Amino acid sequence: MTEILPSYVQGAWWTPSADTEATEVRDASTGEVVTRVSTTGLDLGAALDHARTVGQASLGALTFHQRAVLLKKLALALTARKEELYALSSRTGATAQDSWVDIDGGIGVLFAYSSKGRRELPNAKVYVDGAVENLSRDGSFLGRHIYTRLPGVAVQINAFNFPVWGSLEKFAPAFLAGVPTVVKPATPTGYLTEAMVRVMVESGLLPDGSLQLVSGSVPDLFDHLRLGDLVAFTGSASTAERLRAHDAVQTGGVRFTSETDSINASILGTDAVSGTPEFDAYVKQLVTEMTSKAGQKCTAIRRAIVPEDAVDDVIAAVRARLEQRIVVGDPRAEGVTMGPLASLAQRDEVRRQVRRLQEGGGELVIGSTDDPAVRHADGSEATAPDGAFVAPMLLRFADATSPAVNEIEAFGPVSSIVGYRSLAEASELVARGGGSLVTSVATHDPEVATTLAAGIAAYNGRVLFLDRDDARSSTGHGSPLPNLVHGGPGRAGGGEELGGIRAVLHHMQRTAVQGSPEMMTALTGVWHQGATARPFEANDGVHPFRKSLSELRIGDQVASPSRTVTLDDIETFAAFTGDTFYAHMDEASAAANPFFPGRVAHGYLLVSWAAGLFVDPAPGPVLANSGLENLRFVTPVSPGDEIRVELTAKQITPRETDEYGEVRWDAVLKNQDDEIVATYDVLTLVAKELAAV
Amino acid sequence: MTEILPSYVQGAWWTPSADTEATEVRDASTGEVVTRVSTTGLDLGAALDHARTVGQASLGALTFHQRAVLLKKLALALTARKEELYALSSRTGATAQDSWVDIDGGIGVLFAYSSKGRRELPNAKVYVDGAVENLSRDGSFLGRHIYTRLPGVAVQINAFNFPVWGSLEKFAPAFLAGVPTVVKPATPTGYLTEAMVRVMVESGLLPDGSLQLVSGSVPDLFDHLRLGDLVAFTGSASTAERLRAHDAVQTGGVRFTSETDSINASILGTDAVSGTPEFDAYVKQLVTEMTSKAGQKCTAIRRAIVPEDAVDDVIAAVRARLEQRIVVGDPRAEGVTMGPLASLAQRDEVRRQVRRLQEGGGELVIGSTDDPAVRHADGSEATAPDGAFVAPMLLRFADATSPAVNEIEAFGPVSSIVGYRSLAEASELVARGGGSLVTSVATHDPEVATTLAAGIAAYNGRVLFLDRDDARSSTGHGSPLPNLVHGGPGRAGGGEELGGIRAVLHHMQRTAVQGSPEMMTALTGVWHQGATARPFEANDGVHPFRKSLSELRIGDQVASPSRTVTLDDIETFAAFTGDTFYAHMDEASAAANPFFPGRVAHGYLLVSWAAGLFVDPAPGPVLANSGLENLRFVTPVSPGDEIRVELTAKQITPRETDEYGEVRWDAVLKNQDDEIVATYDVLTLVAKELAAV
Repeated sequence: MTEILPSYVQGAWWTPSADTEATEVRDASTGEVVTRVSTTGLDLGAALDHARTVGQASLGALTFHQRAVLLKKLALALTARKEELYALSSRTGATAQDSWVDIDGGIGVLFAYSSKGRRELPNAKVYVDGAVENLSRDGSFLGRHIYTRLPGVAVQINAFNFPVWGSLEKFAPAFLAGVPTVVKPATPTGYLTEAMVRVMVESGLLPDGSLQLVSGSVPDLFDHLRLGDLVAFTGSASTAERLRAHDAVQTGGVRFTSETDSINASILGTDAVSGTPEFDAYVKQLVTEMTSKAGQKCTAIRRAIVPEDAVDDVIAAVRARLEQRIVVGDPRAEGVTMGPLASLAQRDEVRRQVRRLQEGGGELVIGSTDDPAVRHADGSEATAPDGAFVAPMLLRFADATSPAVNEIEAFGPVSSIVGYRSLAEASELVARGGGSLVTSVATHDPEVATTLAAGIAAYNGRVLFLDRDDARSSTGHGSPLPNLVHGGPGRAGGGEELGGIRAVLHHMQRTAVQGSPEMMTALTGVWHQGATARPFEANDGVHPFRKSLSELRIGDQVASPSRTVTLDDIETFAAFTGDTFYAHMDEASAAANPFFPGRVAHGYLLVSWAAGLFVDPAPGPVLANSGLENLRFVTPVSPGDEIRVELTAKQITPRETDEYGEVRWDAVLKNQDDEIVATYDVLTLVAKELAAV
Repeated sequence: MTEILPSYVQGAWWTPSADTEATEVRDASTGEVVTRVSTTGLDLGAALDHARTVGQASLGALTFHQRAVLLKKLALALTARKEELYALSSRTGATAQDSWVDIDGGIGVLFAYSSKGRRELPNAKVYVDGAVENLSRDGSFLGRHIYTRLPGVAVQINAFNFPVWGSLEKFAPAFLAGVPTVVKPATPTGYLTEAMVRVMVESGLLPDGSLQLVSGSVPDLFDHLRLGDLVAFTGSASTAERLRAHDAVQTGGVRFTSETDSINASILGTDAVSGTPEFDAYVKQLVTEMTSKAGQKCTAIRRAIVPEDAVDDVIAAVRARLEQRIVVGDPRAEGVTMGPLASLAQRDEVRRQVRRLQEGGGELVIGSTDDPAVRHADGSEATAPDGAFVAPMLLRFADATSPAVNEIEAFGPVSSIVGYRSLAEASELVARGGGSLVTSVATHDPEVATTLAAGIAAYNGRVLFLDRDDARSSTGHGSPLPNLVHGGPGRAGGGEELGGIRAVLHHMQRTAVQGSPEMMTALTGVWHQGATARPFEANDGVHPFRKSLSELRIGDQVASPSRTVTLDDIETFAAFTGDTFYAHMDEASAAANPFFPGRVAHGYLLVSWAAGLFVDPAPGPVLANSGLENLRFVTPVSPGDEIRVELTAKQITPRETDEYGEVRWDAVLKNQDDEIVATYDVLTLVAKELAAV
């Protein structure tokens, strides 16, 4: 008998005893048994506890950047063995292109999170959100928001359609946040997820307990969950509803986020008539979305919403393109561009839903529910009753407001087309979907775009605008991207995945913290105005620019002497730079300006001088001034005024894979009356060790 | 018979017919009937539709800044008539101090949101979230996130304890987001909310349909709600649970956010022994939290978690301070510092919960459940069976892990004290509360603070650190602030309110948008690289610095000529500024640096020259350079290189109450090979009209 698919729990591979009853999983094209699935006897509670203890500890020992580096290494490990995954993927019905989306797409998510994690998160364990809030007149009491990781486990329940991408797009942000994962793939394609997890485990890169795999059903899962845990679910709206209703979520504080199939729409703009590049791009995208992954995508276009008088044109163009481009068959056969559905059960379900759409007023204008003739692996063409094949189908609804077209999903290569009479009506039809993952709009008219955006954005997690400018570079209606949120309101599940660091933060708790500047500095790892600063002369006598990254401490400070600004200086600077703006050069006009008492120094003169005042010029660990942020000019500087600068090490970010890191310095310019002239952050690159210079 | 309290729906005051059966509401101290409450016959569905149509339209016509200005005017209108509110407030049992928190605190939220709205939101209707994401190699396809307002109504269900603040803290962010409010106060104190709404209505400032009031129960509320609506609930965890279970929330996509009473904790740090300023601050805060609003605060301290050997010290100090400071009685009596509970029902409920705490192992070490002798309005002291009075009570639990102390809330002047043996145990006890609104920590040791923060932050919406540095300026454990999030995980409801703009965004939908630079510019109102720019010479010939705010358009551009940088320039600049950093002055050391080919120009020289290249110097509408953001130096500039600058109007933000506004300019410096040298945003203040200069 075929082996039972292993799970990976508590740091070891686990399989039920061979005589366990198990569900057979079959090749989507041929019906051949691929594997069997069962979790009988698996100690789920122990697996979750392993994550909460061992997994939390091992991930908690790492910073965001260290986790990010591991994600890249895992991506490389998967890349090195991806052919094994491609071979299995074709058994699920995926074409090479479908597999690329799933496998390379999934690996791409790891690369993207690795990169974003290092660019957009601190090399620390706490994420600081938003600006400091001064809560007292004297600056002794501050408020701020921090994110700390959830103290539990992220349980990731995935759909059958993207066994690799679906797992990795949830794993990457959880891992980066420092929250251990238990992944539960869907039975029909779980063998591909198992192969992926095997590569990851065998890479030796995974911190203990950071990833576990449950191959099979977990009916009592929610009874084991508690505050601090998170469930990320992808699948049907009805399953999401049932899971969400559990006490663990309703009253136990378990976070539940869901991404469910939705009745996504694609609008053809009023300007995008037949013959325009937008019309062609619209039709091309619609056919792609109908047929890629045989339409088994939560993001697929279910409703084509087009100007009433364009309905016939669109149908004709879709028909022509389908005939030209689409060959249905076994993905292992040459020339096949659309494979079978994942299982016979899915095939039957899709046909059932198409019949419901017909009963609800839909006229099948392209395709049929009959078994199509398909291309077999040996090149022959015939029907294949053991393969889960259906033909692409388009239904036309005369009544665009019919509940069927706006509510029923056939999770296969099936779309419906309806006509609209005004942009307001098009928006209203989108809303009838009850919340969608994505809507696309083909238009080259910015006014059409903004009108539709105002009407539909709040009903969508993503809106794509397609026109002649981006038709060739567009990543497409149906493609969630790691840097954009994936999810949507209402029927789409109400959750958010991906979106770069946003998804990392969904695995963390935002907490307002209040305290003295000293405490804020300790809690955030970022120096706050009012906390202890160490002017170097009074302290160790070593200028901070002479300290390597490993020696520098936040709070290390240069408090410069004062320098007087003269009218001559202002004129010299104006002549040198060419900046003869009237506020610097024309006393009467400057005095007439609401902000200036008369001629004032250039802001750029002040920050240039400040650099002269704080810099220690000799070669040393400071490698470069890489930038400047949040500069605000607060008090103008008149001839005769003195300025001085306080430069304080604010945040230190060593790079994991370089010999240097970034130091952010707090810069404050003051005048002779101790008024603040300007504030900003100076960014520098500093060598980790003096020897490295 | 006493009049029935009116509702304000569909732009008019509404009261049931006088013979309707209605609930009597009584003065908390005297038992006298204040008003009667009923909603029999109120057409709630019509009120909600009024908000969704009229309210959405009137608020949708305004920008964030216009709404923010109205919030300030509403705050001033309430301030002008606040004495009316104070007079009513004392009938609810509130002392003058309690009323200040409720009434002035509530008005303060409006001021805070008005100010934050104008400083932190654009003067527009769409909020842009995060950075632009380049989704194609050629820059023709971009991604970005925008927030647009929810298309429905915000229903705000409030608790009885803060009838003014509770209403305004929910109203302000909804209003600023552009979402109309229907407020439903709690019956025992709804008459104070009614008086507040009356002042707001009579001010004439409210856009049509932006605020409605339902005075009384709305049992079928959720049957009327749908996707695009939001419910913000404050009250008991059990009611929240019941409401959240409704289909409208579970499957209908109605957003439900709740803030529920929680078993908040206050930890005395191991360093904060008797005799330290932290010990005193801890005890003072604990007594304040027990007695202010007679302990009827979701944020009150229910659990004092102190080092085991400090338990007796804390009890003694609390007892002494209560005896010294706390006088229970009618708030209208001289010298009273703690009033009654809101109603006799609340009094009986608190006593019931105290008995449950006792049954669960609590020993009542301060106070009793008997009727206390209280000070009456006439100055006499006696028990008052018709007033809702209870004495402050402290219970001691020998077993800190007892379910009773961690789970039972007596919503009155009641706290419990437990001992801990290690910081890990203190954290673990906080977690046993199942999620809290706030925990405070008294410590002066940053290590104690960071250890506890790592253990407890994820279980709290807010954590306050109290020490000698902030004890006098601290706003206190129990005070939610408009700029910090209020809410917490698990038992605290899982929601977030306030937190400045964060709460505004909770009334909006985040949507990823994808499209060409041109479309991104149209959708966001912010110019994007790659969208049409109009170099002025080739267009209207008018330099953008000569255009007033009303004439300027995003995309207006200065594309400067080139200027060659010489070694002499670098040396001149070094001598003038004093910035003789080796990368500019020392060829060998500069060349040894990993980032530079040899001596390079100062970054500040480049941005100074750029200003000289783009500025139009004569007096005109440009008033000042107010700052600079996101400066990054990308390619070093060597002697002999040429630089030029493209300065493009990126975002225009007129100020509603000034004669000028802010223009953000996109600045790109390029060299002779069209490589990007530096990118940044220049911020300027520009007059709205030329006449205003």
